[in-house]
Amino acid sequence: MPKRVDHDERRHRIAEALWRLASSRGLDGTSLRDVAAEAGISLGQLQHYFSSKGEMLLFALEHINKLAEARVLERVVPLPEEDRSPRRVLRESIAEMLPLNEESRTGNLVQIAYFVRAVHDERLRRHAREGIPALREFFAGQLRIAAQRGEIAAGRDAETEAMLLIALADGLTSYALLDVHSPGEALRLLDAHLDRLFTPDPR
Amino acid sequence: MPKRVDHDERRHRIAEALWRLASSRGLDGTSLRDVAAEAGISLGQLQHYFSSKGEMLLFALEHINKLAEARVLERVVPLPEEDRSPRRVLRESIAEMLPLNEESRTGNLVQIAYFVRAVHDERLRRHAREGIPALREFFAGQLRIAAQRGEIAAGRDAETEAMLLIALADGLTSYALLDVHSPGEALRLLDAHLDRLFTPDPR
Repeated sequence: MPKRVDHDERRHRIAEALWRLASSRGLDGTSLRDVAAEAGISLGQLQHYFSSKGEMLLFALEHINKLAEARVLERVVPLPEEDRSPRRVLRESIAEMLPLNEESRTGNLVQIAYFVRAVHDERLRRHAREGIPALREFFAGQLRIAAQRGEIAAGRDAETEAMLLIALADGLTSYALLDVHSPGEALRLLDAHLDRLFTPDPR
Repeated sequence: MPKRVDHDERRHRIAEALWRLASSRGLDGTSLRDVAAEAGISLGQLQHYFSSKGEMLLFALEHINKLAEARVLERVVPLPEEDRSPRRVLRESIAEMLPLNEESRTGNLVQIAYFVRAVHDERLRRHAREGIPALREFFAGQLRIAAQRGEIAAGRDAETEAMLLIALADGLTSYALLDVHSPGEALRLLDAHLDRLFTPDPR
């Protein structure tokens, strides 16, 4: 009887091999062959799943984003209703984007590998053009709830504030990875920004 | 008589060759030999100036940053005194960091080439660890002047706001390069943030 191959398991094993390489030395000059070796399979087997580095990178990125989402939900869902405020949901979501632990640091390093390729590759950029507006809409939704609850200043535009939060998380992450500030300092700066955002108008 | 070589001119020619390669296709897999060919010199001549890609990248980055600084000064210095407000100086400085024109877009692409290498290279990270605090201090100084002039809310910490501005500029740039938003939209988002920062307390 031929051995059954679990294709999902194998795809994930390939994605994880890619993460390890991206975390330890980036993907510059890393070939499909290197990733196959790291995953313990042949190049031919790897190419059965991914025909190019870009395709593999997108899969790895989507998988890593799903895991990050799951970690946010794990922290937010068990909270009692009264603690599940928009500010808390936003803060937990953005904290997960910062390199505060090994999982998100690995995610960030894969994101960088994606980023540096995507700026020169129209097809890869599509992933960002679809993913970020979805995240922005989620953040804007939380901000609209906060506005209804009177928790933020009245004049704030939810879409604008949502994109500012995403851009800020990205920049704070970059400078943490460059050792300009610690990940903890990145979180403190984020909180300072949130403090201002979640200040209702004085009356 | 042996031909005299203008070493500064040659270093700049190499830096510009590097920018062209970084802008058009990134530096992944680009060798010192490629840069030498692009600059129209031999590999040996290039190695006389730079012994590694990292060293060459740092020089190119410093040179590009100096040009960006000069462009900011060119716009700010001719302004009449009353228009040289901290807000204006900050806005011109940050706008120069966004990919709004060909020069700053090239600068951003060289920054990315630096960034992706520096996250895995302790020696390269030193450049960011020295450069960003200097920029932060300059921004914080402008914010302290603004505070003295009563142009920003009293409770704002200049150092914190300065780093938030730098991180924001970085994130807005990344998403502009990924076509998530246009460079013009990045500028609009920056202005929305500055509007809030430069709102004195209501009394």
